[in-house]
Amino acid sequence: MRIDGLQYANWSEKIFQQLRQGGVDAIHVTISYHENFRETVLNFEQWNRWFETYPDLIMKGTAAADIDRARETCRTAVFFGFQNPSPIEDDIGLVEIVHTLGARFMQLTYNNQSLLATGCYEAEDNGITRMGKQVIKEMNRVGLVVDMSHSADRSTIEAADLSERPIAITHANPHEWAPALRNKKEDVIRAVTSNGGMLGFSIYPHHLKEKSDCTLASFCQMIANTADKYGVEHLGIGTDLCQDQPDSIVEWMRVGRWSKEIDYGEGSASNAGFPPMPDWFKDNRDFGNIEKGLSDIGMSEQEVGAIMGGNWYRFFTENFSPAG
Amino acid sequence: MRIDGLQYANWSEKIFQQLRQGGVDAIHVTISYHENFRETVLNFEQWNRWFETYPDLIMKGTAAADIDRARETCRTAVFFGFQNPSPIEDDIGLVEIVHTLGARFMQLTYNNQSLLATGCYEAEDNGITRMGKQVIKEMNRVGLVVDMSHSADRSTIEAADLSERPIAITHANPHEWAPALRNKKEDVIRAVTSNGGMLGFSIYPHHLKEKSDCTLASFCQMIANTADKYGVEHLGIGTDLCQDQPDSIVEWMRVGRWSKEIDYGEGSASNAGFPPMPDWFKDNRDFGNIEKGLSDIGMSEQEVGAIMGGNWYRFFTENFSPAG
Repeated sequence: MRIDGLQYANWSEKIFQQLRQGGVDAIHVTISYHENFRETVLNFEQWNRWFETYPDLIMKGTAAADIDRARETCRTAVFFGFQNPSPIEDDIGLVEIVHTLGARFMQLTYNNQSLLATGCYEAEDNGITRMGKQVIKEMNRVGLVVDMSHSADRSTIEAADLSERPIAITHANPHEWAPALRNKKEDVIRAVTSNGGMLGFSIYPHHLKEKSDCTLASFCQMIANTADKYGVEHLGIGTDLCQDQPDSIVEWMRVGRWSKEIDYGEGSASNAGFPPMPDWFKDNRDFGNIEKGLSDIGMSEQEVGAIMGGNWYRFFTENFSPAG
Repeated sequence: MRIDGLQYANWSEKIFQQLRQGGVDAIHVTISYHENFRETVLNFEQWNRWFETYPDLIMKGTAAADIDRARETCRTAVFFGFQNPSPIEDDIGLVEIVHTLGARFMQLTYNNQSLLATGCYEAEDNGITRMGKQVIKEMNRVGLVVDMSHSADRSTIEAADLSERPIAITHANPHEWAPALRNKKEDVIRAVTSNGGMLGFSIYPHHLKEKSDCTLASFCQMIANTADKYGVEHLGIGTDLCQDQPDSIVEWMRVGRWSKEIDYGEGSASNAGFPPMPDWFKDNRDFGNIEKGLSDIGMSEQEVGAIMGGNWYRFFTENFSPAG
């Protein structure tokens, strides 16, 4: 089983076909960065059109059982998430509404301070806000998973502790392997995994050791080391693949509507766009390379299966339905 | 001249007539607490209807010169403000849009953490956010005044220092006189006034010493003491009068849409509604009582005039136009 914990591609029939060629059974796709509720609904609508147009390639996923159905019919189940809480605006009632529409992950922040928590680019982090505490409780109730991939350390640890259900870092790597601002320090990963949560390994080059030049062996050894440290059952893949996106999209991700000035985020003025992907993971057809890489460094078939999809499958099974 | 720095009444012809009976030349009225942009536009529309319906009592105010015109025609000039940045959502471009529509004050927070700063009810305050710094700059550019009445201390001090134009605390009192959470400590008032800003004295009972039983003499002596400490030129009135509002409105102010649980704010379960106003300030007809009270404790005619409206007039003159 192959499940990718995060993608934000410039979707097309070509990519849907590549998902099939790569044997990808399920993906979590971002459908909102800075969109408000109404704009996010447009993105649900767009996906409804794609499901209608390509019924033999993709299907909407809302529960883990949809992955079984996708496998039986040789399709990819697509699960929705937000990288920012902007779709719920300042309205806690929208948590249940977006879950009903199909959202299954929501980041509490995207780089900046949100109404709920602090993002990793703020100078200081005062943890989960008053509204954040209420919203985590409501997300737990309806089955919308807290994702802290772009949050600051203290906010992430507090979210892991406050949440009564496991949370996720869908796309990031250990900071000790690649000291990017977005990668996660030991106490952060520990808080998430010790509460039953998941870490999805990112292949976005800014999160890799040696960036675009990172080797498959280095990436896989990092995964094995992380498994030794936190337990293989908490680990999955979250490629952060942004295939075929123009550079204007990474600028939009970084700047949204919050600033009139350019913010380069993980990039820089001289390297503002999307960095090139490593040669061993260009697109969805390359999942086999990761699988082989994990075997080559000595992981068992069972461990490789857990990391490539089994753990996400279990996590989806347990965390997408209402509590109770 | 009489100018009130903040009201949120349940507006009616009766109240517009009382404004005239009280000789009120201008008021700053709140038109948004939790409303998003589109909802705030509805509130601008409602005021347009009132201006159309009662042209002999009220008129829209956008510049200090409108106060002169209101005085010449025996009307009250109504200036608009927001007690939360919710009308600009996450969109810095809306700062100029709301100014064009007539907004002249915007609080960076209302009790809770916002995208811009920390509110006074949060456990901790990490100051002005990344977006907050951008938005203050834009507010300075277009002439939308930063109001920090409901913000936490550090955020307020940082806003006063970061802003290139004077800011305001439109409705609060010194904490040393009445130690309410919403009242302001010395370093906060100092930061605002030393940067040319204004403090408007509130008559909302939760902000008064002895609350609803506060005497006029105590209130006026507090004003005189504050003038001695920070300079009379930085002081005005901001009654926070919420005349004729049902108790459901104070619950809405406190809870908005951010929580499914009741939050009692400055009240309590046993005292959840609007507290009764002190007997010397029941409505807009009572501004003469404050004027007389200030004279009675020995303030000069010039000082009383400055506090009752002259200072706000000067502040409006200097801060509502684009920076130039």
